[in-house]
Amino acid sequence: MTVQRILIVSGTHGNEINPVWAVKQIHREQNSSNHGIEYEFIIGNPAAYKKGCRYIDVDLNRSFKKSADFDQHKNSFYETKRANFLVHEFGIDGPQPCQIAIDLHTTTANMGTSIVLYGRRLKDFCLAALLQNKFGLPIYLHEKDKSQTGFLVESWPCGLVIEVGAVPQNFYDQSIINKFLIIIRSLREEIDKLKNNLIDLPKQLVVHVHQGSIDYPRDEKGNIDGLIHPQRLNQDWKIIKKGDPLFLDSQGVIHTYEGDQFVWPVFIGEVAYKEKKIAMSYTKKEVICSSKQWVHEFESL
Amino acid sequence: MTVQRILIVSGTHGNEINPVWAVKQIHREQNSSNHGIEYEFIIGNPAAYKKGCRYIDVDLNRSFKKSADFDQHKNSFYETKRANFLVHEFGIDGPQPCQIAIDLHTTTANMGTSIVLYGRRLKDFCLAALLQNKFGLPIYLHEKDKSQTGFLVESWPCGLVIEVGAVPQNFYDQSIINKFLIIIRSLREEIDKLKNNLIDLPKQLVVHVHQGSIDYPRDEKGNIDGLIHPQRLNQDWKIIKKGDPLFLDSQGVIHTYEGDQFVWPVFIGEVAYKEKKIAMSYTKKEVICSSKQWVHEFESL
Repeated sequence: MTVQRILIVSGTHGNEINPVWAVKQIHREQNSSNHGIEYEFIIGNPAAYKKGCRYIDVDLNRSFKKSADFDQHKNSFYETKRANFLVHEFGIDGPQPCQIAIDLHTTTANMGTSIVLYGRRLKDFCLAALLQNKFGLPIYLHEKDKSQTGFLVESWPCGLVIEVGAVPQNFYDQSIINKFLIIIRSLREEIDKLKNNLIDLPKQLVVHVHQGSIDYPRDEKGNIDGLIHPQRLNQDWKIIKKGDPLFLDSQGVIHTYEGDQFVWPVFIGEVAYKEKKIAMSYTKKEVICSSKQWVHEFESL
Repeated sequence: MTVQRILIVSGTHGNEINPVWAVKQIHREQNSSNHGIEYEFIIGNPAAYKKGCRYIDVDLNRSFKKSADFDQHKNSFYETKRANFLVHEFGIDGPQPCQIAIDLHTTTANMGTSIVLYGRRLKDFCLAALLQNKFGLPIYLHEKDKSQTGFLVESWPCGLVIEVGAVPQNFYDQSIINKFLIIIRSLREEIDKLKNNLIDLPKQLVVHVHQGSIDYPRDEKGNIDGLIHPQRLNQDWKIIKKGDPLFLDSQGVIHTYEGDQFVWPVFIGEVAYKEKKIAMSYTKKEVICSSKQWVHEFESL
């Protein structure tokens, strides 16, 4: 394995402050043995972090797009420039090349600690499987959603998001910080083991595959006119079937799930997604058998 | 009693969205008997509410200042103009004069439902005592703090803030909404009783009087370098004494309360107050004996 440098990003969204604090603590531990791997700890969106908001002009974690896919008018945006800087500086062809990027996020939804993968890259599967094996974490596999692209970790050969919730934006919570500390330390241990060929890949990876998102009920002016139903609130990762309540609107009417397939909702009521017109996303459970190829791919990084 | 019109303000801070929703529901009930009292329901800061932020230029709930106290350079601020508009339109000398203003707020601190009073106006005491008698609500009496002035309700002859938490900013929570519904309906009942001389003033009013605020530990750059100590988090209204932990800094050092007086902290870790350099405020408990004068003053409104 040729991994030399790993990028750990916190504060990609400026109002997700707990991972920034966790990284501050981890930074102090860095003088311990790193098995020849360097860690770069950076704040993804320092301007937004300073201001306590998610972003300045546009969501940084949707701004890592290939130039061909990119609206030219977005070139002047702070986050477009920041995304370009991060890739130029820490991307695989940059002066401080990182082979892996780990992006630390929080959510206001009650999702616990989870991993988010973008697409089906075998290197990511390898890393995610090791963490899932250790902690039993749920994995949200995001794919095939044209309305949501340009995620940070996609710009690195291998990478994943660690997502921890529920925690409000801008609110320090030591229990959330502790969850980041545990997962970052474990990630380093697992990568060290991989580096020393001491891996123990589990037989399978259980993922929740993104199926789509639904919006809140809205009134004729486009304002939200229904809240997450009390029976659905905080029930992330819990299966729902046809007829289960989703929203309670201002008239007292219950809006139910009308799909024929069972689905597992995530990001239920995530505050930051209201502007994206997402009240929750649906996922489907899938079991993927692991393969030695995952480790080979990881080793070739 | 000559009260004709009562102003109910929600969304004075644009990211406190639950009272806005509660008012939407209350609005529908308005055709029931109002005992000759009209209710004006308005969104305090519509531009910030639309944007999902606390304010546009400056905190609206610190912008209701007498012109003599006012920085001229703030005249161009959205909130300065909005405060002037609200007072000109709904103030006691305006075209739609309101005798009472009720301002609905949420906090990210674990304070439950409470009432905030600004100074010792007997009319406010009257209303607060009736609500405290009904629900046992704690009352935060804010006074003598030169760094915090210009609160909305001070611009009306009588008025108070209803504060409900803990709830994250921009997060809909039906249990928080329900608390607003209960308190607004009760407020209307109590005012109706007052109007019909059916009052039952309790013997005393228990208040927590503002003593001052303290900031987080900060590093040499001015960045927050300590979190609310786990033993202090969510412990609003609970007495502390010398030596009790307040903060845990990034070095693992515990910062303790060093005052000689017992105090009751409130707004512990309130997210919106970080920019005001307030980690929590201290209060002192005080019992005020009620007097018929409170009712007389209220009746003279």
